[in-house]
Amino acid sequence: MLKNDSAKPSAVTTGSIQGSTKRYEPVAGFPEMRIPLRRVNLSNGEHFDLYDTSGPYTDERAVIDIEVGLPKTRDRWDRPAPIDGAATQLVWARAGIITPEMAYIAAREGVSTELVRDEVARGRAIIPANHNHPESEPMIIGKKFAVKINANIGNSAVTSSIAQEVEKMVWAARWGADTLMDLSTGKNIHETREWILRNSPIPVGTVPIYQALEKVKGDPTALTWEIYRDTIIEQCEQGVDYMTVHAGVLLRYIPLTAKRVTGIVSRGGSIMAAWCLAHHQESFLYTHFVELCEILRRYDVAFSLGDGLRPGSIADANDEAQFAELRTLGELTKIAKSYGVQVMIEGPGHVPMHKIVENVRMEEELCEEAPFYTLGPLTTDIAPAYDHITSAIGAAMIAQAGTAMLCYVTPKEHLGLPNRDDVKTGVITYKIAAHAADLAKEHPHAQERDNALSRARFEFRWNDQFALSLDPDTARSFHDETLPAETAKTAHFCSMCGPKFCSMRISADVRTYAQENGLLTLEAIEAGMAEKSAEFIRMGNSVYLPVSAL
Amino acid sequence: MLKNDSAKPSAVTTGSIQGSTKRYEPVAGFPEMRIPLRRVNLSNGEHFDLYDTSGPYTDERAVIDIEVGLPKTRDRWDRPAPIDGAATQLVWARAGIITPEMAYIAAREGVSTELVRDEVARGRAIIPANHNHPESEPMIIGKKFAVKINANIGNSAVTSSIAQEVEKMVWAARWGADTLMDLSTGKNIHETREWILRNSPIPVGTVPIYQALEKVKGDPTALTWEIYRDTIIEQCEQGVDYMTVHAGVLLRYIPLTAKRVTGIVSRGGSIMAAWCLAHHQESFLYTHFVELCEILRRYDVAFSLGDGLRPGSIADANDEAQFAELRTLGELTKIAKSYGVQVMIEGPGHVPMHKIVENVRMEEELCEEAPFYTLGPLTTDIAPAYDHITSAIGAAMIAQAGTAMLCYVTPKEHLGLPNRDDVKTGVITYKIAAHAADLAKEHPHAQERDNALSRARFEFRWNDQFALSLDPDTARSFHDETLPAETAKTAHFCSMCGPKFCSMRISADVRTYAQENGLLTLEAIEAGMAEKSAEFIRMGNSVYLPVSAL
Repeated sequence: MLKNDSAKPSAVTTGSIQGSTKRYEPVAGFPEMRIPLRRVNLSNGEHFDLYDTSGPYTDERAVIDIEVGLPKTRDRWDRPAPIDGAATQLVWARAGIITPEMAYIAAREGVSTELVRDEVARGRAIIPANHNHPESEPMIIGKKFAVKINANIGNSAVTSSIAQEVEKMVWAARWGADTLMDLSTGKNIHETREWILRNSPIPVGTVPIYQALEKVKGDPTALTWEIYRDTIIEQCEQGVDYMTVHAGVLLRYIPLTAKRVTGIVSRGGSIMAAWCLAHHQESFLYTHFVELCEILRRYDVAFSLGDGLRPGSIADANDEAQFAELRTLGELTKIAKSYGVQVMIEGPGHVPMHKIVENVRMEEELCEEAPFYTLGPLTTDIAPAYDHITSAIGAAMIAQAGTAMLCYVTPKEHLGLPNRDDVKTGVITYKIAAHAADLAKEHPHAQERDNALSRARFEFRWNDQFALSLDPDTARSFHDETLPAETAKTAHFCSMCGPKFCSMRISADVRTYAQENGLLTLEAIEAGMAEKSAEFIRMGNSVYLPVSAL
Repeated sequence: MLKNDSAKPSAVTTGSIQGSTKRYEPVAGFPEMRIPLRRVNLSNGEHFDLYDTSGPYTDERAVIDIEVGLPKTRDRWDRPAPIDGAATQLVWARAGIITPEMAYIAAREGVSTELVRDEVARGRAIIPANHNHPESEPMIIGKKFAVKINANIGNSAVTSSIAQEVEKMVWAARWGADTLMDLSTGKNIHETREWILRNSPIPVGTVPIYQALEKVKGDPTALTWEIYRDTIIEQCEQGVDYMTVHAGVLLRYIPLTAKRVTGIVSRGGSIMAAWCLAHHQESFLYTHFVELCEILRRYDVAFSLGDGLRPGSIADANDEAQFAELRTLGELTKIAKSYGVQVMIEGPGHVPMHKIVENVRMEEELCEEAPFYTLGPLTTDIAPAYDHITSAIGAAMIAQAGTAMLCYVTPKEHLGLPNRDDVKTGVITYKIAAHAADLAKEHPHAQERDNALSRARFEFRWNDQFALSLDPDTARSFHDETLPAETAKTAHFCSMCGPKFCSMRISADVRTYAQENGLLTLEAIEAGMAEKSAEFIRMGNSVYLPVSAL
């Protein structure tokens, strides 16, 4: 199925994550369906199951052949008939149908199928699942569910190869990416995407204007609706699950960016602005939007309405250009949904902390609470090489406020194309932001993992602490830098404080002593205090009883 | 002055930071005083001055001899007479006196001396400046001023040497640490601290109970008030600027920690809890607090009232134990201030995002807005090896809410003692959190650095972008991984998008085109639209005008 090529991927990372094993659980009512889990086996005999995005690559029993691609599991599931020309989760949800994808997601998220259906029907959640990407494991993006993260990969004209990009996909999914965007702009865009799609267990998004631009040799003014339309159809056929379309960059908004510090920083936005100005004509993405809807709904490809005028600096945050475009995205959301197409809305960008919540409020108001999908936002401009961190701050806060999916930012942002290590750093950093937001939203069960890890930490079960962490390999290697011996994995201290100063050890000793001496309640302490106070007065400050237990 | 020793430091990092030069500016009214600045020289002929914590080490003209120590600059300044036995910035501020330290700080922060004096007098800001640390460059901790960060260093029984710790101090100050805590617990505590103090341009804090515990060979129950008092006096004499005292860990609070997931995680807190329980007696830090005040006010050492019962996990955040202790810290704050001692309050720890603001609100209410000084907080427990990031999220948010100083967390937190690289990562990460908070608080001038860097970015002045960033070395090296040539430093793209897809380049081109064609206003665009619309109707969708400018 996949063509041979000299740049073809040779191998990808396989094998279970340290301390975990892959498992599958049945789904009630769907006998042939099973959802993946990552089971962490703890040293105290307990286990902890984690939501798992990694696909068959972490299954020791799976046979991986990237030239064949992953099993086309969803092809075996029943697909409901189209309704009024739309074969989408949205129209089926509205019709009261629980699709296999909805059942799968409900089991995976630990919620009711009805919640999944209802949120999709309201347009407050989407299930990006192109019929032609049957290899994907269904997932949902919506604020009532766990916050999701997206990893961007893709080569550019300057660097990278197909092999590297396929490995980055597998690698990103391994560490927890819920979706992937292939933003390739160099050579072999179609073929790179084919390798990725046939091997990706997670939904894949694209920005089709990039490929359209390659077809006209990089001249934005040479773009046409027909070239763009054909590119959309090509990608729908191939199996892309969601597409970024910058249809809100209208000609009249372009002057609003003239006084900005950083102009237009979205690639798609700047391409369309160039086209609009050159032709002195409204964007063909806007004028042909209904035709786009009619194409996407046949495949159930979701719109990710792009924020082509997002701020690229703190100075430009929440400005007129940004919110003017957002209003247009609100109009387009209504049109897309009226055609049965699922929609999410892309958000910024660079935003200082005190202006973050307004972005969510505006998006929800203007776009009928369509899932918000933001890039960070970066909360300061002054830390290139650390923008995974500047943006994790903003990402956690915007997700707490209701953003459903966070597009990661890697340490290379603004500086270069991320390599494999950068991809992992970006994914782990964004898992942190997403999970911090789940905790802050008091999402059911979110805190259980924190509790399990903290218990392991307090009980000095070092291996369990590593296994329960987002990145067991790095946690272990940091610990082992100073205390590599296997015996140190049960030691009641680490090199941070050394044995005498370990607060956790002293605290555990205190607890044992209190238990043995009946001092576990305030009453017991106070009774003891009263009893001792006479003694205290008699003996002054010199009462130092030897306590062998300590 | 400093004793010779085989473990003595041999060398520390010196030399200016890439793209910057050290400068000194005069202070009005104090002819012998000058404040340090880091001047970034931009390629467009402009320059940008930065607050500089790095001391003489970044001055190419300075002669550095760590065996001699830094110049004792503050010894040459006039010190007002004590008032009622207190020789502190607090009592002088209350008396309406502008001390040299206040004048220095006002110039350094770009604010009025009156604001500095007033905030110190109200107890809402502190100036940690022991008379016996004349090498330090005065700085202020308070919510009306730029958010500050602290770096913890110090050896433990397991690892590190004096040489490494002195270099860590210089290194932390180089990258922006405003204060330093020496948390050494191993051998040679006094001597390590002597090397650090005599060479530190930033205030130094300690947790004296660590040294007291070493004096009793690590047995908490063998501690006595007298041993502790003598340790305090020793450290005051030596020049420690602020001291963490866990005087709020009362005997009756200990049972409140019994049901916690992670018990007591503060070293000092657990040591005092062990002492209290074993002796069945109230903490000597609490019962002798007034005597502590009488010692500290002679030197102008500030209290950092420790949160010995801070939560060590998400599960334990904002619990009864934590807030009970905070109420006691409020009582102690009032006592300390009545003796003229400056006070700040330490805060957590591990706190999910939705419980962060309550910490600031409670602290301000209970402790009369004494400066809050928090460790993170970490917003999730599940990412050991990335706790600089889990905590940067919480740190930025708690600083936005009013925290005055952030204690950094390094990637090694929970796993081992930070090395030099970890110290830098921790400092840069916390500079991000502090600056993000300054932006969110709309602190005067904070955004100017973001704007300068963003302008450099938009204009492809790569070297200026690096020089203005928090870590020019890493930013440059990331860029150069793919485009190392010097010509790439003025190239209008990077490897992230390549030349054809650079949104900044296209955006600049769009702007030029719009300017040349008079399309910079909405009116011009609309006029053009009308004019073109007839043409549009005539020619359908096929109007593709060649635009050579694009």
